[in-house]
Amino acid sequence: MGSDSTLTAQKRTSTVLPTTIAAAANGGARGRANSILPRGRQNQRTFNNIKITMLCLFVTILVLRGTIGLGNLAPTEADSENQLLIEETNRILAEIRSDKDANDPDDQSEELFNPNITYSLGPKISSWDADRRTWLRKNPQFPNYVDKKARILLVTGSPPNPCDNAIGDHYLLKGIKNKIDYCRIHGIEIVYNMAHLDMEMAGYWAKLPLIRRLMLSHPEVEWIWWMDSDALFTDMTFEIPLSKYNDFNLVIHGYPDLLFDQKSWIALNTGSFLFRNCQWSLDLLDAWAPMGPKGPIREEAGKILTANLKGRPAFEADDQSALIYLLISKRDEWMSKVFVENTSYLHGYWAALVDRYEEMMEKSHPGLGDERWPFVTHFVGCKPCGSYGDYPVERCLKSMERAFNFADNQVLKLYGFRHRGLVSPNIKRIRNESVTPLVNVDQFDIRHSLHESSVSKTL
Amino acid sequence: MGSDSTLTAQKRTSTVLPTTIAAAANGGARGRANSILPRGRQNQRTFNNIKITMLCLFVTILVLRGTIGLGNLAPTEADSENQLLIEETNRILAEIRSDKDANDPDDQSEELFNPNITYSLGPKISSWDADRRTWLRKNPQFPNYVDKKARILLVTGSPPNPCDNAIGDHYLLKGIKNKIDYCRIHGIEIVYNMAHLDMEMAGYWAKLPLIRRLMLSHPEVEWIWWMDSDALFTDMTFEIPLSKYNDFNLVIHGYPDLLFDQKSWIALNTGSFLFRNCQWSLDLLDAWAPMGPKGPIREEAGKILTANLKGRPAFEADDQSALIYLLISKRDEWMSKVFVENTSYLHGYWAALVDRYEEMMEKSHPGLGDERWPFVTHFVGCKPCGSYGDYPVERCLKSMERAFNFADNQVLKLYGFRHRGLVSPNIKRIRNESVTPLVNVDQFDIRHSLHESSVSKTL
Repeated sequence: MGSDSTLTAQKRTSTVLPTTIAAAANGGARGRANSILPRGRQNQRTFNNIKITMLCLFVTILVLRGTIGLGNLAPTEADSENQLLIEETNRILAEIRSDKDANDPDDQSEELFNPNITYSLGPKISSWDADRRTWLRKNPQFPNYVDKKARILLVTGSPPNPCDNAIGDHYLLKGIKNKIDYCRIHGIEIVYNMAHLDMEMAGYWAKLPLIRRLMLSHPEVEWIWWMDSDALFTDMTFEIPLSKYNDFNLVIHGYPDLLFDQKSWIALNTGSFLFRNCQWSLDLLDAWAPMGPKGPIREEAGKILTANLKGRPAFEADDQSALIYLLISKRDEWMSKVFVENTSYLHGYWAALVDRYEEMMEKSHPGLGDERWPFVTHFVGCKPCGSYGDYPVERCLKSMERAFNFADNQVLKLYGFRHRGLVSPNIKRIRNESVTPLVNVDQFDIRHSLHESSVSKTL
Repeated sequence: MGSDSTLTAQKRTSTVLPTTIAAAANGGARGRANSILPRGRQNQRTFNNIKITMLCLFVTILVLRGTIGLGNLAPTEADSENQLLIEETNRILAEIRSDKDANDPDDQSEELFNPNITYSLGPKISSWDADRRTWLRKNPQFPNYVDKKARILLVTGSPPNPCDNAIGDHYLLKGIKNKIDYCRIHGIEIVYNMAHLDMEMAGYWAKLPLIRRLMLSHPEVEWIWWMDSDALFTDMTFEIPLSKYNDFNLVIHGYPDLLFDQKSWIALNTGSFLFRNCQWSLDLLDAWAPMGPKGPIREEAGKILTANLKGRPAFEADDQSALIYLLISKRDEWMSKVFVENTSYLHGYWAALVDRYEEMMEKSHPGLGDERWPFVTHFVGCKPCGSYGDYPVERCLKSMERAFNFADNQVLKLYGFRHRGLVSPNIKRIRNESVTPLVNVDQFDIRHSLHESSVSKTL
């Protein structure tokens, strides 16, 4: 899901920035067909073998650390049990990974390809607005607006199996903890998906069938908010300005000039966007989906997209390019209901933000949601769960750790704590325990300030 | 947190079941001081070395798999980049892990020990009920009851750093996904904690300062529900029967006869329990905490608990034994407000349940919450995030996978899917896509049946 969708993003960024960093440039090339092979392979190989040995050493030390840490064991016994663990873990890991889906396109995408059938997300639904309206009238206990606030369902997810890169799961965990915090503060429901609903739409296309399914299964939800697993909320106070979007059905971060003047393939970012639960959205999904089916269709569509979108490298069709292409080629049909957001960072490009957090903490404050204090920091081009990305893994992980802690400090404030530093998982007190804790609640609970501001607005 | 608290549990279970499985028995012994050393160490060592080599091979293959899977790279280039990844991952992993808290008791618990000071969770608060009542009156926008339903905050968490056992993070992720699903369906808020609020109370004691802090920071919450990270909801329909608990302040799973007749150290389980947000709970936390501080205090307290509780092995004081000891020794002072639940499985012991899921699916249905369809399945004695547990890791992981999918099937039903099997992360359709999806919503959305039942109750 998110981690997949960054595959798009990688190439995007490699065109955005002049990739001065060797590794990044290398990575940028990586994704493309015309990749340059490195020199001095023989030496490289020897070097690699040394590195493999380093890894083994590292892993062994790691696992040993855990057991030795317990102290009350004779080392050799620890040793033997610790090896028992390793063996068992390998077995279960292998078992879970080997459990391939019979229809897994990775195995047999060809079989799925039938040129005589145009792909569809499901049987055509044409009376959704009327049907949903009737349902809402019949089910007053499930209103789509509560206290005049539209009901929002945030949707994110990750692959069903463990990450190829083990530490990836740790950052998926931090990613969802970050979303749980934002959504608790702002009264948003969450669906975390770990399943492949439609094998043909695997990878970064998986969000389409998922969003459609959730619209149809949650008629009480007014907005479906898709967010990649590698996007973090970094402004816990900023509330999505829904009133701005009253007359629109799709809200997505981007730049109209890049979209229509330059036809750039990075004019919009599909890492974080909102769909209104309505017929229009179902129709857009239907128009968006046909380039998605894995295999020949996606490959051929990729060529069309590369030929028509500025800066797009040659690779299979991705959901973002397909949406941009659709909106450019059928502008009159769709754009009237699309809100292209760029005043607040519904998507914020991490590489331009993570190094400025200290400066923001010094000069600015949460609640602005823009370059002064980004609403979302999206790790475009990092694939923490995948096995490679467009940037050095170390830089990605360190930056994600910084973004997570930058956001977490805003949550911990209510409890009187903050992280020791932006790369430190450890926290320290910023207030002593008080005998009048409710004073701190009134002062530091983000929801209170939100409520007051919303009240003052309505007055 | 949860993973830590299972340290208690491990030893517990080793006394519950006659551990016929060699590994388990071995594991049971492991925790205790008088552990028997294995025979034929020399051969064992050689065997271990072979296993280490196997692990290295496995890891290397794993990482290579990821890169090779991408296809469009020359093997040698893939190799080199893949090694780059490994090297970088190790560096960042090492950096994050090495970032030890200055006050980390693992390093300097001795320093923290001062026999002249009795530990407390914070300054004594004595007027909480009145203060909270006043606050609630002043803040009608944050009611502790919504539609006559008490506001519940589910609290869970895991350590700040990546798991020692890499796959542990994947099961922490599945654990929180499972809780997100249950809490969305039942309108419960979630706090996922990844920080050490109080270094003295590290490990399975960490829940005490956390619960206290959350009570004082969330006066609008009526119940704080602690749940270990290794406990999964396995009945998505069953709703916690709060009306039963109207006159009580602590709800915990256990058996009165085990508690007062046998003084058994497994009479209660602290893996899943509810505290009412009130003065009584703050007082109980104060009375519960003194045995917690890491180091000599916890060690000495452990001896008292082992001497007084039936079946308790010799090890440092744990939160569960301490609570049992407190309730036994000060029964008249506390028990009148403690509800010992055992009709529904607020905590259900996994080893007795996971192999019966198929039978339950055949003969029973969700919503019962007891042995016919357990509300919670708790992986007592498994330490997926730690480096060893009381049971073979393979059995633990496979059983957790089964429990997760057993629960996930109840969530996926609304969307028309189910897992291919209880150990399969992959899903299959159970209904074709419909042109009248709202019929399925009325039929399969758990919240609808819940609402109807609650309405019929009130009539």
